[in-house]
Amino acid sequence: MDASSLRTLIEDVAGGRCTPDDAVRQLRRLPYSDLGFARVDHHRDLRLGMPEAVYGPGKTPEHCAAVVDELLTATDGPVLLTRATEAQVKAVTAAAAALGVGVGPGTVAESGPLSTVVFRPASPRAGGVVVITAGTADLPVATECMAVLGALGFAPTQLTDCGVAGLHRLLAEVDTLAMADAVVVIAGMEGALASVVGGLTPAPVVAVPTSTGYGAAFEGVTALLAMLSACSSGITVVGIDNGYGAACAIARILP
Amino acid sequence: MDASSLRTLIEDVAGGRCTPDDAVRQLRRLPYSDLGFARVDHHRDLRLGMPEAVYGPGKTPEHCAAVVDELLTATDGPVLLTRATEAQVKAVTAAAAALGVGVGPGTVAESGPLSTVVFRPASPRAGGVVVITAGTADLPVATECMAVLGALGFAPTQLTDCGVAGLHRLLAEVDTLAMADAVVVIAGMEGALASVVGGLTPAPVVAVPTSTGYGAAFEGVTALLAMLSACSSGITVVGIDNGYGAACAIARILP
Amino acid sequence: MDASSLRTLIEDVAGGRCTPDDAVRQLRRLPYSDLGFARVDHHRDLRLGMPEAVYGPGKTPEHCAAVVDELLTATDGPVLLTRATEAQVKAVTAAAAALGVGVGPGTVAESGPLSTVVFRPASPRAGGVVVITAGTADLPVATECMAVLGALGFAPTQLTDCGVAGLHRLLAEVDTLAMADAVVVIAGMEGALASVVGGLTPAPVVAVPTSTGYGAAFEGVTALLAMLSACSSGITVVGIDNGYGAACAIARILP
Amino acid sequence: MDASSLRTLIEDVAGGRCTPDDAVRQLRRLPYSDLGFARVDHHRDLRLGMPEAVYGPGKTPEHCAAVVDELLTATDGPVLLTRATEAQVKAVTAAAAALGVGVGPGTVAESGPLSTVVFRPASPRAGGVVVITAGTADLPVATECMAVLGALGFAPTQLTDCGVAGLHRLLAEVDTLAMADAVVVIAGMEGALASVVGGLTPAPVVAVPTSTGYGAAFEGVTALLAMLSACSSGITVVGIDNGYGAACAIARILP
Amino acid sequence: MDASSLRTLIEDVAGGRCTPDDAVRQLRRLPYSDLGFARVDHHRDLRLGMPEAVYGPGKTPEHCAAVVDELLTATDGPVLLTRATEAQVKAVTAAAAALGVGVGPGTVAESGPLSTVVFRPASPRAGGVVVITAGTADLPVATECMAVLGALGFAPTQLTDCGVAGLHRLLAEVDTLAMADAVVVIAGMEGALASVVGGLTPAPVVAVPTSTGYGAAFEGVTALLAMLSACSSGITVVGIDNGYGAACAIARILP
Amino acid sequence: MDASSLRTLIEDVAGGRCTPDDAVRQLRRLPYSDLGFARVDHHRDLRLGMPEAVYGPGKTPEHCAAVVDELLTATDGPVLLTRATEAQVKAVTAAAAALGVGVGPGTVAESGPLSTVVFRPASPRAGGVVVITAGTADLPVATECMAVLGALGFAPTQLTDCGVAGLHRLLAEVDTLAMADAVVVIAGMEGALASVVGGLTPAPVVAVPTSTGYGAAFEGVTALLAMLSACSSGITVVGIDNGYGAACAIARILP
Amino acid sequence: MDASSLRTLIEDVAGGRCTPDDAVRQLRRLPYSDLGFARVDHHRDLRLGMPEAVYGPGKTPEHCAAVVDELLTATDGPVLLTRATEAQVKAVTAAAAALGVGVGPGTVAESGPLSTVVFRPASPRAGGVVVITAGTADLPVATECMAVLGALGFAPTQLTDCGVAGLHRLLAEVDTLAMADAVVVIAGMEGALASVVGGLTPAPVVAVPTSTGYGAAFEGVTALLAMLSACSSGITVVGIDNGYGAACAIARILP
Amino acid sequence: MDASSLRTLIEDVAGGRCTPDDAVRQLRRLPYSDLGFARVDHHRDLRLGMPEAVYGPGKTPEHCAAVVDELLTATDGPVLLTRATEAQVKAVTAAAAALGVGVGPGTVAESGPLSTVVFRPASPRAGGVVVITAGTADLPVATECMAVLGALGFAPTQLTDCGVAGLHRLLAEVDTLAMADAVVVIAGMEGALASVVGGLTPAPVVAVPTSTGYGAAFEGVTALLAMLSACSSGITVVGIDNGYGAACAIARILP
Repeated sequence: MDASSLRTLIEDVAGGRCTPDDAVRQLRRLPYSDLGFARVDHHRDLRLGMPEAVYGPGKTPEHCAAVVDELLTATDGPVLLTRATEAQVKAVTAAAAALGVGVGPGTVAESGPLSTVVFRPASPRAGGVVVITAGTADLPVATECMAVLGALGFAPTQLTDCGVAGLHRLLAEVDTLAMADAVVVIAGMEGALASVVGGLTPAPVVAVPTSTGYGAAFEGVTALLAMLSACSSGITVVGIDNGYGAACAIARILP
Repeated sequence: MDASSLRTLIEDVAGGRCTPDDAVRQLRRLPYSDLGFARVDHHRDLRLGMPEAVYGPGKTPEHCAAVVDELLTATDGPVLLTRATEAQVKAVTAAAAALGVGVGPGTVAESGPLSTVVFRPASPRAGGVVVITAGTADLPVATECMAVLGALGFAPTQLTDCGVAGLHRLLAEVDTLAMADAVVVIAGMEGALASVVGGLTPAPVVAVPTSTGYGAAFEGVTALLAMLSACSSGITVVGIDNGYGAACAIARILP
Repeated sequence: MDASSLRTLIEDVAGGRCTPDDAVRQLRRLPYSDLGFARVDHHRDLRLGMPEAVYGPGKTPEHCAAVVDELLTATDGPVLLTRATEAQVKAVTAAAAALGVGVGPGTVAESGPLSTVVFRPASPRAGGVVVITAGTADLPVATECMAVLGALGFAPTQLTDCGVAGLHRLLAEVDTLAMADAVVVIAGMEGALASVVGGLTPAPVVAVPTSTGYGAAFEGVTALLAMLSACSSGITVVGIDNGYGAACAIARILP
Repeated sequence: MDASSLRTLIEDVAGGRCTPDDAVRQLRRLPYSDLGFARVDHHRDLRLGMPEAVYGPGKTPEHCAAVVDELLTATDGPVLLTRATEAQVKAVTAAAAALGVGVGPGTVAESGPLSTVVFRPASPRAGGVVVITAGTADLPVATECMAVLGALGFAPTQLTDCGVAGLHRLLAEVDTLAMADAVVVIAGMEGALASVVGGLTPAPVVAVPTSTGYGAAFEGVTALLAMLSACSSGITVVGIDNGYGAACAIARILP
Repeated sequence: MDASSLRTLIEDVAGGRCTPDDAVRQLRRLPYSDLGFARVDHHRDLRLGMPEAVYGPGKTPEHCAAVVDELLTATDGPVLLTRATEAQVKAVTAAAAALGVGVGPGTVAESGPLSTVVFRPASPRAGGVVVITAGTADLPVATECMAVLGALGFAPTQLTDCGVAGLHRLLAEVDTLAMADAVVVIAGMEGALASVVGGLTPAPVVAVPTSTGYGAAFEGVTALLAMLSACSSGITVVGIDNGYGAACAIARILP
Repeated sequence: MDASSLRTLIEDVAGGRCTPDDAVRQLRRLPYSDLGFARVDHHRDLRLGMPEAVYGPGKTPEHCAAVVDELLTATDGPVLLTRATEAQVKAVTAAAAALGVGVGPGTVAESGPLSTVVFRPASPRAGGVVVITAGTADLPVATECMAVLGALGFAPTQLTDCGVAGLHRLLAEVDTLAMADAVVVIAGMEGALASVVGGLTPAPVVAVPTSTGYGAAFEGVTALLAMLSACSSGITVVGIDNGYGAACAIARILP
Repeated sequence: MDASSLRTLIEDVAGGRCTPDDAVRQLRRLPYSDLGFARVDHHRDLRLGMPEAVYGPGKTPEHCAAVVDELLTATDGPVLLTRATEAQVKAVTAAAAALGVGVGPGTVAESGPLSTVVFRPASPRAGGVVVITAGTADLPVATECMAVLGALGFAPTQLTDCGVAGLHRLLAEVDTLAMADAVVVIAGMEGALASVVGGLTPAPVVAVPTSTGYGAAFEGVTALLAMLSACSSGITVVGIDNGYGAACAIARILP
Repeated sequence: MDASSLRTLIEDVAGGRCTPDDAVRQLRRLPYSDLGFARVDHHRDLRLGMPEAVYGPGKTPEHCAAVVDELLTATDGPVLLTRATEAQVKAVTAAAAALGVGVGPGTVAESGPLSTVVFRPASPRAGGVVVITAGTADLPVATECMAVLGALGFAPTQLTDCGVAGLHRLLAEVDTLAMADAVVVIAGMEGALASVVGGLTPAPVVAVPTSTGYGAAFEGVTALLAMLSACSSGITVVGIDNGYGAACAIARILP
């Protein structure tokens, strides 16, 4: 319902090219198709520069396959399934195959017990993105983030195991950080990596707290609060373990 | 301590243009000056594209004046004092005056009981920034954000009182949002404005939860959590009431 | 123990139609029957306009069957079992069958791993109720709510997947919302749908936060707090995932 | 922006009675007027059956007076100011007086240090509303609720000091509760009154937790959680100390 | 509304000594008198073995005086005002004086900025009660507890500053603890004193967490949780700073 | 290490009946025996009037058997195992059998998936204890409490399913409550039963919050806070689901 | 009540040099003197290597003076008053003066609105202690810590304003940290300094979270959790703002 | 990147013994080796006096084996794997065997379902360390702590089941505590053991809260907060269940 399409529609009505009834119907029905259990948003890519992603949890494999089928058919951009179980992966790859969309290397990224599935990744896109993690345990979140960035056309650089307890491991990457157009910092425990990276680069920094750690790490709450309170200014934060969201934020930042 | 200056210095040592002792000393002492109670970071602007801001709380007026004096003298970029009391404002404006730095309109932005002070704002900078608030009570945070954006060279557009309870007030601004290069959403209570704005624009959205509201708003915690859980993808969040941080994030995003 | 029945009883005593001992006994024993492990409240429907529902968790299948048997025998209104496991469903349908109460379509509503079971649904009742959900993951809670509304005699309309990130999906239903007599909004994550719906309809809005989402959604706490802090006035809230409670609230509102 | 007015407008365009440009302008500008610091929503009463209320905190007395002036001038329904300081009360009553709107008994309801101000209360409205409080300390919240109910045209009955520790004080009012069309339960501490009242009446029950009590009452959080977990089914809850919200909920319920 | 008085009343009706109307009226009106802003519970002492206490916060001095006047007139037991400000103390002592109830030593116990006021303390009562505190900062809570115990007829022994950091200070009182009929343990910070005392005496131990301490003591929450988790079995806990509640618990325990 | 035994020992030393070395050794070694992984406290019954209970979780079945063996051998009072798995139950009953301690009815009380095991229950003890629960889901906690009370010699009365939503179910037991020497109230959800019972009986009330309920019941936290904030005075509280602790508290109260 | 003094006492009894009655009395009375409102622990220095400190909050100036007087008279080590108001400082310096204990430079350390007072500081003690703070706002806590370290005989080095956002400021002090015998890290906001320092020195690191910062810093909770979750191993933490406790921990570590 | 090695390197450059390019490369590459999924820190032992430990969770058995292989090959100190599953233990012992590093008694310490694995423990080291636990349920954490202390060369004394409910069990160990060079206190529930031990020994006390207990123990949060608020001064705390961290803290304290 953005202003310019509203105006075009109204001009069509004014010019007799469209009846009022049709106009109202279009205003209501155009931008999505209703599958009964879900309303698939065809215009999201156009409107937001990002394709709609199918979020796996709570959906049956059949639901997933139906939505993916709808998106592959009705749009021509990338199609994404996140946090998918093995059964969901199987269902959507079968659905894609039925439409002649093949599965190549990089289609399914395993991230712990769940996976990210990418069909028809976008064509390459400018922007040097660095994804940096504090420890090995943060890798599942980084994998999701990397897969989504890839689906959106980025070719991100991944730096792993750069926690601040061994500062030299991080300082060794100071050039990589300085040359980045945007940085995603993924860290659990006390999340201090975000603060330190924020002081080493002028690029936008999107921090992702992870549920890594135990006890007082409180499933990512400690890292979340620490990143929100980071003494380096201008750091922004997404939700706990939200590698997908961080990738989308990058897509907004580097259009 | 970035790699290229390290290399120059080492080459100087290799070429006999610098003794090892001097090199070590420079590596240690160059980047800040130590006032005893504070270490002023002269190179922050160079390193991070943002000047060091003086954070008022916990500093005496004399401390504030001394740091501002040091920054005005040793650097030539903008100088910022945030969350300043009236006494602190008086002290730093006197210190600036003594250095011949005058106070004009826009130098002091009152934001509730505290103020943001800006000396030598940066020269104008490209980038259409929209700062949108949900309600009148969010204005103090917006004021801080606007002042810091101004100090950094932006000329942001401010939209006020666009809470989602009266959706038409927001939809009226749909063009403004669609044309923005970046959007700062400032909202308290349930912070739903961030989710809705995120669905209306492809631009980067930096959400600032505010401590507006009472009872179950829990001093901004509700808005913070809601923004972190926003169903619109790619929204990023800064700390509660952190208008300053949001402005810095914009400066990272629109370099 | 409402005042008029108390008065009748006392008048019976005054008139010699009832001995004091009997009066005391009646006052104590009348309104429920004690199964040992549970006290079944026969008069709840009369007193509150809602039948007593059997809450599955913590009860053995035998307990469930016994209470359902008691209710089917001693009352003639609807009988409800909520949050039932497969074993509990099996036990109560057998118990009902033994009493000649058959199982038809709509008797068992699967809601994730648990089910809602309805015997002898009430006869149709006026009142246009809309149950609207933000995402597919909220469906299990909506299913429980729909089943209980059906048991109480309502024929609710269900709108699914209307989250605020794609506002046009919601705006397309603006007429449906405007014509509703009451609306149940079911949403997880940041729960912003309640605020937006509250601004689009003058009808009573009962918001149900769900435990959908991860990380900072905190198992429904974020949605709960956001709904309680909603900027649209007059929204009321029930407990997390409490689709049953929302249906009962509607029954109180539309008598 | 509801569907029928949209259709009328489009038909006007189709019929040449309105140019496309004008249509777009109307769609944007009609429903509120922009005071710079606030957007006053003239149509709220029409759209939601409730007038827009001015929320005092964070507004200067001048802001309050300006919004009240706008509402008194541009609408003809009730005008409300909530949580107002003495200075705000003085400013708005002066503004009202300047418009010839007088101040009578009941205009200003003192609720602790803050007040609720009502100009032009609605004409009497059907619906028996009972506002019941647990203790004397809950009275300020009840006062706000009563004043807003009065502004909306109700003539509520108030029952005070009916906490469950002395159950007979509550049982004495069992008839009043049984005959109510809607009940607002206001309680702090453990908020048990809501559960008990919910078991005594079939009417809609809106529970308001208050920040009464100390220690483990946690400023109303205990009462809030208890009310959300109430064992009586169908109780709904509004935010802590939100007497205003409860009154609005009643207005939605008893139209 | 206990069963035996109910029976008597019903027998009176059966015997014609009381009309049904009168019976209903008595059942409703007897046990309290309604002052408009408060319902004073005359029978609490009879029913619960404890007089109704007037809780100061949220009441005007006039309210306090009126309730105290009502209680002094309509009952003949002890009358208590807790958490009273200086103005409230002045008002109630004047009200008492007007009824010929004098103020002697021990009437007003200052407990930090607030006071406990006791008129007509109960006559002496058996039961050796020990009130033990961890540190000097717990004294205000202990003072309230001692005053209420005194009002109820006890002559408690007070042991102060027995924190577990200097275990010998506590062990020196081992006989006193061993001979007690009941012990109230009052402690803030980590509340460990309750665990240790619980291991030294077979008497009932009522633990009162206090808001003493700073930082991670979280206004008494730490002590509260620690006392609830005490490894000594059979310790019971009342709310934070609730010296009054502990005294009442003792009165229930030592009847 | 209580004072009188200390004195006896010292007198023995003074009288030459005991050498200093022996005295020190006795002071150290007497009151427990060290099994390596546990120190079994033989004197707890003597010292605290309660036998030491073996807490199952975290112990292997062998550990449980060894401690039970030690207690059955070295003391002659009741021996308790709480929260035992099936394997632990099997191990300890075998160990008891090997010592000739038989298993009769009432030895093993199943409480959900875990059990309470009682060997050699104490001989009957005076004191009318009532254990009252709000709902069927609270039964596992009640079962633990009943079993421990039995082990300690009490013959408690159990009242089940008396939640305040159907007040008449509770009022029917008003005599039972009024005649009790002590009451244990076990409730989850909003825990309101404790407040209401506290207003109906002058007896000591020990409230046990349970983790019954879902969503905003927060695993018993809501009931815990509500019970601590109960408006009925003198109620005391033990930890969540701590039926064992409540029984021990009763043993302290009714010696 | 340590074992060797117990043995001596018992040997005295055995040797007739002490009656049993006297022994018991000594065992009870020796180690402290009871001022009525406080039990002053004379032996704490001997037992724990640290003098007893008087904690100001909750004590009247007279209380403070009395305890200080007792400690100055009965012991000959350092005497400390922490978190003292101006009135308390005045009272204790007068009390000290009356005993001929003078006030020199360093006696009173102002730490925000409160002060630390040190009489008779211990003689110099080995051990290179570094106290490092993240920002200027952490200085009040550092001041308390420095004063207490001084009282205990240390001559600590203070490094200020070394937050990780400007890592070079910290790296410049790498030698100082490497040569330290123990380090106290004092930081608010996200507390990342502790993690980084922990990776730069093998010395014991005691981290003190401060209540510096706003919004998501949550009065020190964020820093506390972050320090407890620090990825550098072997860091230990004391309570929020507890500069005193950190100094005492150093005294335990460097005896 | 410590200062002296930096100087040596720079002197080598100055002396022509190293080219600038090589110097930069060395500064970057020296201190770790990058395995792709992890950066193994060879110098940690040198830099921090503690070997790098491999944290099991989130790593595949192959990851674990690869890192252990790298550490066994590239360093010659102890190699540690913590919180390892059975599969991880199997993988690393195979990897070690392949390098000729045998498995002896004490290599694998089972701690609940997870294990600590130690290869090449350090040679014996001075320092009397006492590890004391409150209850049997704390043993898994103690086992991890003991194993790590052993790996670092300590021969700690373990005292088990010394909870404060039976104070005599603790007092029996008063000599052991008094003679310790450092004490680790491991306790769940209310964590009171730390406070009491802190008052009995002048040694450094490192407290480890455990997730033992249920209900209000909140998975270790209660013990954590209680230990941070301990009334004994100078106690320091590590994260919940962090036996490893406590051992590392001891290694920093007793170098």
